Amino acid sequence: MRDDIDVLVHEVGTRDGLQAIDTIFSTEGKMAWIKREAEAGVPQIQVGSFVPPKLLPQMADSGEIVKQSIQIPGLTVSALAPNLKGAENGMAAGAHQIGVVMSVSEAHNMSNVRRTTQDSLDDFARIVEFRDTHPEYKDVCLSGGMATAFGCTISGAVPLPEVMRVAEGLLERGADRLSVADTVGYANPGQVKELFDELYRTVGSDIAIGAHFHDTRGLGLANAFAALEAGVRELDSSLGGLGGCPYAPGASGNIVTEDLVFMLESMGMRTGVDLDGLLEAREIMERQLKDEPVHGTFAKAGLPLGFKYASAA
Amino acid sequence: MRDDIDVLVHEVGTRDGLQAIDTIFSTEGKMAWIKREAEAGVPQIQVGSFVPPKLLPQMADSGEIVKQSIQIPGLTVSALAPNLKGAENGMAAGAHQIGVVMSVSEAHNMSNVRRTTQDSLDDFARIVEFRDTHPEYKDVCLSGGMATAFGCTISGAVPLPEVMRVAEGLLERGADRLSVADTVGYANPGQVKELFDELYRTVGSDIAIGAHFHDTRGLGLANAFAALEAGVRELDSSLGGLGGCPYAPGASGNIVTEDLVFMLESMGMRTGVDLDGLLEAREIMERQLKDEPVHGTFAKAGLPLGFKYASAA
Repeated sequence: MRDDIDVLVHEVGTRDGLQAIDTIFSTEGKMAWIKREAEAGVPQIQVGSFVPPKLLPQMADSGEIVKQSIQIPGLTVSALAPNLKGAENGMAAGAHQIGVVMSVSEAHNMSNVRRTTQDSLDDFARIVEFRDTHPEYKDVCLSGGMATAFGCTISGAVPLPEVMRVAEGLLERGADRLSVADTVGYANPGQVKELFDELYRTVGSDIAIGAHFHDTRGLGLANAFAALEAGVRELDSSLGGLGGCPYAPGASGNIVTEDLVFMLESMGMRTGVDLDGLLEAREIMERQLKDEPVHGTFAKAGLPLGFKYASAA
Repeated sequence: MRDDIDVLVHEVGTRDGLQAIDTIFSTEGKMAWIKREAEAGVPQIQVGSFVPPKLLPQMADSGEIVKQSIQIPGLTVSALAPNLKGAENGMAAGAHQIGVVMSVSEAHNMSNVRRTTQDSLDDFARIVEFRDTHPEYKDVCLSGGMATAFGCTISGAVPLPEVMRVAEGLLERGADRLSVADTVGYANPGQVKELFDELYRTVGSDIAIGAHFHDTRGLGLANAFAALEAGVRELDSSLGGLGGCPYAPGASGNIVTEDLVFMLESMGMRTGVDLDGLLEAREIMERQLKDEPVHGTFAKAGLPLGFKYASAA
């Protein structure tokens, strides 16, 4: 991580948010959002997903979006890929980081991609092998994503040892980074601390670990704080909390980027992000929405009197 | 605290919520809300405020509300009082707990009640003396409330030593309990931990300490979790987050009772509260509103699959 920030805020609204809503943003519209948010100082943005356009038409221009985004100075560009084919396309477009997500819950993985987690781990190994046999991609960071790590809408509770098993499986197969996701908004802060404490004990503190929380039941930022307490220093979030949960109509999606940045900077943790710039990016995003709600309270309340950015302290 | 609960959830929407909105609830309407919420297991409800009706017409029936509420079996009935006169009226009505709030910030206290915090501390001493010289009120709990403990809209940051000074001042004058409030929604979880750690060091762990958070900038439940981590076991909240902040139009008020209860029970902390019952109380409250928004995400998302109450664990 850059030495001028303490926590890496990873914007995922341009992927997780956009794929969850009906409105399809134009390539220009996405780029206006990405550029303004990068300009505000957000260090990493997940700009797309290399899935078949038939499945997610919102993501059909991901190749073009990656190509344009990597021109933005200083921005780390990440993208999701569900399989080797997607990962190849993402690397070919020039993404700096490819996230490959599998569900810790067997039932969820089976329902989502019709594969066992073991099969998904083997797929991950093939992606690593592809990267390692193509010197032009040697700098691509391969992130192993663990969905439903805090619970599953099909099987309920997900035992901690299963999360550890998948984490170790990903690292054994060459993952450069882990991402732990509360895909369905089941996590609570006590559980979050317990999981990350156990994860650091299991895999050591050298590996970069990110956390991905949804605010489905209002605990998103409490969970983020709990993750920070456990030592996590990379957090996914979505501008205006764009997105949602298909199981909870009207419920919010990822934790809200601007609320998260406000929390971090208030706590003295440098993010490199300017909140005014973030609100401008939010407006650029919001203008392109049709009926989709945006979330978050910082945008309404603004900065407290006497607020100081952590980097200015 | 009762030995069948781990955290005391103190509903304040019937006071803090109702005094912040335009709609004036009828006495019957308030009682329908209070009864249903008490029936759902909420152990303590702040049912009113003994202020001049001219200032807060919403609270004009507080005497009657207290009289009816103390008939509800098992419910601890609290009320606010701004001064000795209000405290006398509250005790005469039969309130079990009287909260007397002053601002830690001199500028805020002066603006709010035109008194120095030293004068307000002396007022508190007179209320304690009144209680102590009236044997019929010997069981009334006098709670010393510290507003703007985490920051002030007039003077900005509030230094920690000033919070400790007021806390010690309240205890020296006989407060049975302390309540620490983020009146204007400035707190962040790092600050919350620091403040409560210092407060327990200063006043010891025997004294009951409550925390009162607003969700103005989205950090309400993160702050609540931080307070729990520091050892706080009494939390104020408002059903549906009713209320708001006059400085932040559209911003939410207190932390949301149902989201808080969900967080606590998920974390294995017994509240004694039934969430379905709470949602019914929310409906009773919501039906009486005109244009005021309610907040919270639990009401939309519901319980996760496989959820177990802490008391059932």
